[in-house]
Amino acid sequence: MSIVSFTPSPSQYSFTFGGVAPVMRVKPGTILSLFTEDAYCGRITSRNDHASSSLVAHELNPQTGPFYIEGAEPGDTLAVHIVDLTPARSWGASALIPFFGGLSSTPQSPSLQHPLDERTYIYEYDSANHTVGFAAQGSDFTVALPANPMLGTVGVAPAANEVRTSLVPERFGGNMDTPEMRAGSTCYLGVNVEGALLSLGDGHYRQGEGESCGTAVEGAMNVTIIVDLIKGGGPGWPRIESDTHLSSIGSGRPLEEAWRAGQVDMIDWMSELHGLDRLDSYQLLSQISEVPIANVVDTNYSAVTKIDKRLLPVSPAFGGMHAHLSNTAATLGTITY
Amino acid sequence: MSIVSFTPSPSQYSFTFGGVAPVMRVKPGTILSLFTEDAYCGRITSRNDHASSSLVAHELNPQTGPFYIEGAEPGDTLAVHIVDLTPARSWGASALIPFFGGLSSTPQSPSLQHPLDERTYIYEYDSANHTVGFAAQGSDFTVALPANPMLGTVGVAPAANEVRTSLVPERFGGNMDTPEMRAGSTCYLGVNVEGALLSLGDGHYRQGEGESCGTAVEGAMNVTIIVDLIKGGGPGWPRIESDTHLSSIGSGRPLEEAWRAGQVDMIDWMSELHGLDRLDSYQLLSQISEVPIANVVDTNYSAVTKIDKRLLPVSPAFGGMHAHLSNTAATLGTITY
Amino acid sequence: MSIVSFTPSPSQYSFTFGGVAPVMRVKPGTILSLFTEDAYCGRITSRNDHASSSLVAHELNPQTGPFYIEGAEPGDTLAVHIVDLTPARSWGASALIPFFGGLSSTPQSPSLQHPLDERTYIYEYDSANHTVGFAAQGSDFTVALPANPMLGTVGVAPAANEVRTSLVPERFGGNMDTPEMRAGSTCYLGVNVEGALLSLGDGHYRQGEGESCGTAVEGAMNVTIIVDLIKGGGPGWPRIESDTHLSSIGSGRPLEEAWRAGQVDMIDWMSELHGLDRLDSYQLLSQISEVPIANVVDTNYSAVTKIDKRLLPVSPAFGGMHAHLSNTAATLGTITY
Amino acid sequence: MSIVSFTPSPSQYSFTFGGVAPVMRVKPGTILSLFTEDAYCGRITSRNDHASSSLVAHELNPQTGPFYIEGAEPGDTLAVHIVDLTPARSWGASALIPFFGGLSSTPQSPSLQHPLDERTYIYEYDSANHTVGFAAQGSDFTVALPANPMLGTVGVAPAANEVRTSLVPERFGGNMDTPEMRAGSTCYLGVNVEGALLSLGDGHYRQGEGESCGTAVEGAMNVTIIVDLIKGGGPGWPRIESDTHLSSIGSGRPLEEAWRAGQVDMIDWMSELHGLDRLDSYQLLSQISEVPIANVVDTNYSAVTKIDKRLLPVSPAFGGMHAHLSNTAATLGTITY
Repeated sequence: MSIVSFTPSPSQYSFTFGGVAPVMRVKPGTILSLFTEDAYCGRITSRNDHASSSLVAHELNPQTGPFYIEGAEPGDTLAVHIVDLTPARSWGASALIPFFGGLSSTPQSPSLQHPLDERTYIYEYDSANHTVGFAAQGSDFTVALPANPMLGTVGVAPAANEVRTSLVPERFGGNMDTPEMRAGSTCYLGVNVEGALLSLGDGHYRQGEGESCGTAVEGAMNVTIIVDLIKGGGPGWPRIESDTHLSSIGSGRPLEEAWRAGQVDMIDWMSELHGLDRLDSYQLLSQISEVPIANVVDTNYSAVTKIDKRLLPVSPAFGGMHAHLSNTAATLGTITY
Repeated sequence: MSIVSFTPSPSQYSFTFGGVAPVMRVKPGTILSLFTEDAYCGRITSRNDHASSSLVAHELNPQTGPFYIEGAEPGDTLAVHIVDLTPARSWGASALIPFFGGLSSTPQSPSLQHPLDERTYIYEYDSANHTVGFAAQGSDFTVALPANPMLGTVGVAPAANEVRTSLVPERFGGNMDTPEMRAGSTCYLGVNVEGALLSLGDGHYRQGEGESCGTAVEGAMNVTIIVDLIKGGGPGWPRIESDTHLSSIGSGRPLEEAWRAGQVDMIDWMSELHGLDRLDSYQLLSQISEVPIANVVDTNYSAVTKIDKRLLPVSPAFGGMHAHLSNTAATLGTITY
Repeated sequence: MSIVSFTPSPSQYSFTFGGVAPVMRVKPGTILSLFTEDAYCGRITSRNDHASSSLVAHELNPQTGPFYIEGAEPGDTLAVHIVDLTPARSWGASALIPFFGGLSSTPQSPSLQHPLDERTYIYEYDSANHTVGFAAQGSDFTVALPANPMLGTVGVAPAANEVRTSLVPERFGGNMDTPEMRAGSTCYLGVNVEGALLSLGDGHYRQGEGESCGTAVEGAMNVTIIVDLIKGGGPGWPRIESDTHLSSIGSGRPLEEAWRAGQVDMIDWMSELHGLDRLDSYQLLSQISEVPIANVVDTNYSAVTKIDKRLLPVSPAFGGMHAHLSNTAATLGTITY
Repeated sequence: MSIVSFTPSPSQYSFTFGGVAPVMRVKPGTILSLFTEDAYCGRITSRNDHASSSLVAHELNPQTGPFYIEGAEPGDTLAVHIVDLTPARSWGASALIPFFGGLSSTPQSPSLQHPLDERTYIYEYDSANHTVGFAAQGSDFTVALPANPMLGTVGVAPAANEVRTSLVPERFGGNMDTPEMRAGSTCYLGVNVEGALLSLGDGHYRQGEGESCGTAVEGAMNVTIIVDLIKGGGPGWPRIESDTHLSSIGSGRPLEEAWRAGQVDMIDWMSELHGLDRLDSYQLLSQISEVPIANVVDTNYSAVTKIDKRLLPVSPAFGGMHAHLSNTAATLGTITY
């Protein structure tokens, strides 16, 4: 099985969903081995690099792609199975950025208060123990946390000819920042334009739900995915399937609107999978829904509605695509970069 | 060890936090064995009982209590350890109520749309298998779900001489509707008035996060708690400790305000437990926070900020109260009602 | 015509709606001449009195009342016609209060940012020119602004046995903080308890829409009202009628929920006055609605939905009560205190 | 003085801000006489034309433009003075559109409720009396309302290479839907790209504040503007100056975020015009702010923060541009199309 590799040069980074020419055309079923730069464009390398002086506006959250998926048409469903996520550096970084984050006023919701002090944290990645190390700056507290690699951003070109920055999560995916986007998961995205134009990036070595301060343990990532296509059936909001769970990720503001969007999408998904009418599906979801918040810091907030597949009868989604791609992934053996 | 039992008569139900005379005075350390009626005041007993005709306004969500805790003064911390929650009936009920629930317009946020159709679902409780049974009404789909007994509502009298209905979650606790309020958990509440005036109720045999339609599998519950008192240290928002997690529950609208409240409370809690300054605590929380939504349906919404104690060094909260009460609970042996 | 006068002693101030015994029983039609202390309880008298050191928590926004209106029963409509508002002192005060105001984080929606600097502004009231004087503190800018006396807070006891602080605006009225509550206006409030229990206060010599920093030009006020009663017809939200406009004031969070509440109430009011069905009323309101925001700073936000009576055919509201009370007021001649 | 006229053919309509090639290059100071089609693309012509069957998705709210303004560079300020707005047809139309409007659930904030019934209202425009006629459909009520022509949508290309549909209001202007955008007003917009790329449309013969049902009295409009350029000084949010008022229009969700954005922008504007520090400006704004809501129905909500120039000392904004353009407009005499 051939694997297509791609490492973008900095001039090839993509900072929007839509509005960018594809870097490559690939067929459904292609395995892609990719490098993604961190959300800072690699400009923060030590705790002395502060966001306000080191970062370049409009060069944030670089994406690898877009990939033109042959045969993808508006209304179709793109399936992106994450085979592997391996930190590409021995450290990640999280930064407290002025007027950014969930516990600060922001340009979108300003106050007259002064910004929080800036701090940058470097987390050493211990690949043997698969941990990232936190060291406090106001005391000598340290702790090693399990690494939990994920992609903050996976998306396609938006509908209605829109072009959005890679900082935005929306119906087209984008910067959802959910830890559910981990190896072993399959992400389903509705296709809006010919070729879908898939991009991804924003590797996190670890992130809490909500991404409170606005930055996770951001790090360059080696990424292996299988991209596939389902004709038709494009969901209204991004969906993720793992071996154990189905998720729908709504995005919007205020946070309850993000939640409502994901809930209704899951209700419709459950109705389809289990032959339930909408009210029955609503009732059942009320008793089984898990709602881990994704982010309360981005341009839109994102909330995950998640159900445990083991609670319900078996009913394969999207024609069994997740199992199919998981099986394919299993044939690949150990992934190296 | 003596156990104080109390089953309220209907005339003793309490429908507010504050504004009600205590049903009993108890000393810190008392074990209470209580009966709580369901949120419908027992008025829904079959799927033919619809909310709009069966329920009585202002007789919703009856609470058992209030209990006057001797020695409790404003600024203190009440600890409520849930020893056991056992369904008191062989069935629970969930109802789709007109203009209520997370996917309906409500009197607080009205639209001009018609209400959803009413439906009442009876879930048989199978005590042998500890499951509740869902049966669809629009098809013949059925499924048995694991029971997961919890209390929707635990609270004390509010500050500032306020009196709030038992439908409201706020700083004083109340109708938070989080599945974290389960047997084995210790809830910490800041005391606002002499005696604290603890009430609880709203048993759920099972509930999904968010309580989407507004009602869980509501059921009468037998409840065993140990109530204890810590002088001083009253937290700003309700906190819950289990063997594995610390949680803070913020409530408000929109949902992000509930989240912010719980996040800041947890930051301050982590700072205190681990000697971190606030920015370090913010940073660390950003990487470890779990945010399971509690409810998006009540007068205020509630969001849980939760951390896994196993990720951080051991540092007993509230003087080790949770371990102390868990140990006491363990001495009680099998609970019967 | 007899006028009943009442000036509360500090021990008679009321800090809640509900939960307080009436200071007086009055018959419908009574003219009341009242004194209201300022929202600071008179504790800020110079620009050196800062909120954080001068104010006493739980002694904010003192109300004059409650007045028990004889014959008022739940479901009735209380009519409060404001005959006159005259500043009772030669100055008012506005304060920037830490973690309060629309452009600051608050305890309800906290950030980790530091509070804004405190400043207190004393506005001299020039009764001859009917102006209040603003003097900048960071420069020598001064300006005299037209006085525009209003009451921030008018309300009755809440429904469902609740007791709310005088800082809250809700269905029962309370701290709505709208400049529409001025002399010449009639406020209609739904009665929730026997006697209604009317209280009012929070005089503002002038306030901008939104009350941005959280405090208006707060000042003690001499108040003349006529209180009257309409059997039945209690509106869902507070309404105000002036010679030129009808208003409904919704309160809630987020701000769009306050807006929706007032809009639907106005739609129903227009339907009733003009024989329109709800969709026609919605359509018509869409073209004539005025929406001056009341406050974006209180526990709930308040939005006014207002229509110009001159745009629509004459159709007296509440049986012509406003005209009746205005006529009565006109017979009173010059008001003195 | 020469006037440049432009009437777009349907194939020239622009449905996005950004992402569209300019239809024309013009020099600063140019007078433009334009035709704008209505928001329905002219597809609703009678009350039998319902939105769900007559409208074409992605062909809503057609804009006339974009115009490339010579010399405009990022950071500059575009000034658009509206000389005249004259209805181009003898009728306008307002439609109740399924799952759209402020008192309906929407795709962005869905419920499970059914949509409202559809209705289309045709308002005859009486040019002699300058009124539009409302006729109820559920009764025989009719009323003639004063026409109040305005433009719902005025904007430039967004920053950060984004492309947004013409339905969105944001920092770049767009679909703000405020009645302040009337003849005699000057709109100031920050320039984000070379040439600014100004587009406008969405004529309303009349609109209430909030645009409750989502559609105003929509109508094709003849528009005369003067477009001019100020080097530098690009404001953070759209601003409007009339002979009597200064306004800043913030957009976002929830509505309080739109309000905060406009408030802070106005505080900075007042600081600049009157030499006030930010806290003094905040204080002064608190007492003089007018906040007429613009829309609570679009993708973002919009709130106007408005101050009466007559309350403050004279201090010309943007170098006196409004007076200059008003004077130029006055020389044009009667506008005809």
